[in-house]
Amino acid sequence: MSPEELPSMQGPVCPLPISQRDTVVIGHGSGGVLTHQLIRDLFQKHLNSPRLRAGNDAAAIELPASAPEGLRLVTSTDAHIVTPLSFPGGDIGRLAVCGTVNDVSMLGAEVRYLTATFILEEGLPLDELEAVVASMADAAAEAKVEIVAADTKVTEKGQCDKLFISTTGIGFAPASRRIAGDQAAEGDLVLLSGPVGNHGVAVAEARGNLGIRTAIRSDVAPLNGMIAALLQAAPGTHVLRDPTRGGLATTLVEIARQSGVDIALEEESIPVDPPVRKACELLGLDPLYMANEGKLIAIVPAHEEQAALSALNAHPLGKQAAVIGRVLGKSAGRLWLRTSLGTTRVLDMLAGAMLPRIC
Amino acid sequence: MSPEELPSMQGPVCPLPISQRDTVVIGHGSGGVLTHQLIRDLFQKHLNSPRLRAGNDAAAIELPASAPEGLRLVTSTDAHIVTPLSFPGGDIGRLAVCGTVNDVSMLGAEVRYLTATFILEEGLPLDELEAVVASMADAAAEAKVEIVAADTKVTEKGQCDKLFISTTGIGFAPASRRIAGDQAAEGDLVLLSGPVGNHGVAVAEARGNLGIRTAIRSDVAPLNGMIAALLQAAPGTHVLRDPTRGGLATTLVEIARQSGVDIALEEESIPVDPPVRKACELLGLDPLYMANEGKLIAIVPAHEEQAALSALNAHPLGKQAAVIGRVLGKSAGRLWLRTSLGTTRVLDMLAGAMLPRIC
Repeated sequence: MSPEELPSMQGPVCPLPISQRDTVVIGHGSGGVLTHQLIRDLFQKHLNSPRLRAGNDAAAIELPASAPEGLRLVTSTDAHIVTPLSFPGGDIGRLAVCGTVNDVSMLGAEVRYLTATFILEEGLPLDELEAVVASMADAAAEAKVEIVAADTKVTEKGQCDKLFISTTGIGFAPASRRIAGDQAAEGDLVLLSGPVGNHGVAVAEARGNLGIRTAIRSDVAPLNGMIAALLQAAPGTHVLRDPTRGGLATTLVEIARQSGVDIALEEESIPVDPPVRKACELLGLDPLYMANEGKLIAIVPAHEEQAALSALNAHPLGKQAAVIGRVLGKSAGRLWLRTSLGTTRVLDMLAGAMLPRIC
Repeated sequence: MSPEELPSMQGPVCPLPISQRDTVVIGHGSGGVLTHQLIRDLFQKHLNSPRLRAGNDAAAIELPASAPEGLRLVTSTDAHIVTPLSFPGGDIGRLAVCGTVNDVSMLGAEVRYLTATFILEEGLPLDELEAVVASMADAAAEAKVEIVAADTKVTEKGQCDKLFISTTGIGFAPASRRIAGDQAAEGDLVLLSGPVGNHGVAVAEARGNLGIRTAIRSDVAPLNGMIAALLQAAPGTHVLRDPTRGGLATTLVEIARQSGVDIALEEESIPVDPPVRKACELLGLDPLYMANEGKLIAIVPAHEEQAALSALNAHPLGKQAAVIGRVLGKSAGRLWLRTSLGTTRVLDMLAGAMLPRIC
């Protein structure tokens, strides 16, 4: 049989361009015509990677040219379920890119590629989805990463909340680099790149939880550029970590336990924007436990303190960077806070949930 | 300040071991104490990777020892939202591992690592979650892959349907290997590793959609072992693809369009288990459009046909492998089916949705 012997029976071609459908329908998750249409007319319009356009089940990536034994691959993954989808300073798309870019960067890796899955609720307006995907493309350009693979699934109405995005990041780090949560050592200084709590308060306000209007915006941002500058100035950096869910205090408790050291913080040195402090007082929340999406904790040896601080301060995202504490001796791993009143207390991880679905 | 100067104030330690809580609560998504408890007592119990236990934001992976210019990295990602969570022959955990293992393998890569995100609904019984995670661990062992990074989020009750899992796979392929959907060439043979439609029918039955009881089980399985054997026997293989959502017909239309060729199938040569055929007739569905999760399409040059078929038949997952069609000349990319009645028709991609949330 050859096509020439057969009548022309080209199958039906996508009858409705995507722009004329106004919401996600179940068929967009079928893997068939509507799925291909959604991918072509919405996702590929914004996420314009040749690897995505190739339409294979997977993406092939050339390894960096520099020596094989000289590099390690670094990967991280996060699900994003923030509500609402959009909030002052960002949206779920920007969050999904920055969150994973930042996590890969925290081992001192240069992040290069992202993959993304989208779980869509039937009935989601396509223009809302398109705004999120366009925001992802912008954030990826800002972070200089390429989205190389993606997948879309659709649930019936009421079986998910509009849109969830999972991202995975891939980067490369020099094989000799040993930045990790267990590397904090006695005498190290703890640096923080800027004020804490803005993301948590911005999302709470977007939900109407505050009861007041503030001008607070989420800090969601890719930190890889600032980290590259930091590591150039302070190549001996021991720990990098972004204090997201659970906030600054929970993250530092994690590090203290991983490294088996006590960490002491000076409350007065921890930057908190006054409107954030006020909003937290209204809500009965502690800014030290509020989520951040564009802040960096760096723990560096004493001899690199000034170089590290200068590098952070010189970066647009680190203008308010400060030294907020230091690493004490070996221990079971506790976090001490010397308060502005001169008293001292132990901070533990966040117990229970402060604000659900913050990221 | 040193810890010795301070009263003993070790923060509260997880008051309730995970086994005494019976469902997921919002606090499991907080990033704080409960999240750490869930990770330690449930996830790490089954997914026992040293990289996961390290508790960093990302996982570092040594690149394979063989030359840098000799390898390409291959990655793929998928969200899994199948309902119900468990069905004859598998569950969402096995599906999430196999689906991504298979996608990475389809570019001829050896898949090595997985990452996973979990979106949990408040109220999900923890024993149901644990069964899924244990199943993922079993499937990962079967596929010889390591789960190196993971993330857990929790939604309020009613904001997701029990459990969604996104996985991303990382593998490596020889840089010279060019297996992809656009490589089908005139004269190639189309091989299928076994009967189609079992996964779709098994899930439909588990939902009570069939109205009858059959013994049909999902075919969900990792295909990487069979593919390795195939590529050893038929290193000139042009295309590998697993016909999942959209089924055999949709997948072959995709390949025909990517390669710009027509493909002709012989209906009688396509294996379909009799109970699957009967169930499809009852449901008014076409097995050629039903989802599979453990079947392989291989398109090979004519001179490798016998070697490829023998390699597939020799593998436990390919005993019923058959040659089901061949690649015709250059075209816009159509799929022709010569039916058992001797007529010929064009098959298009699946229009609309056959069975939602099949994977």
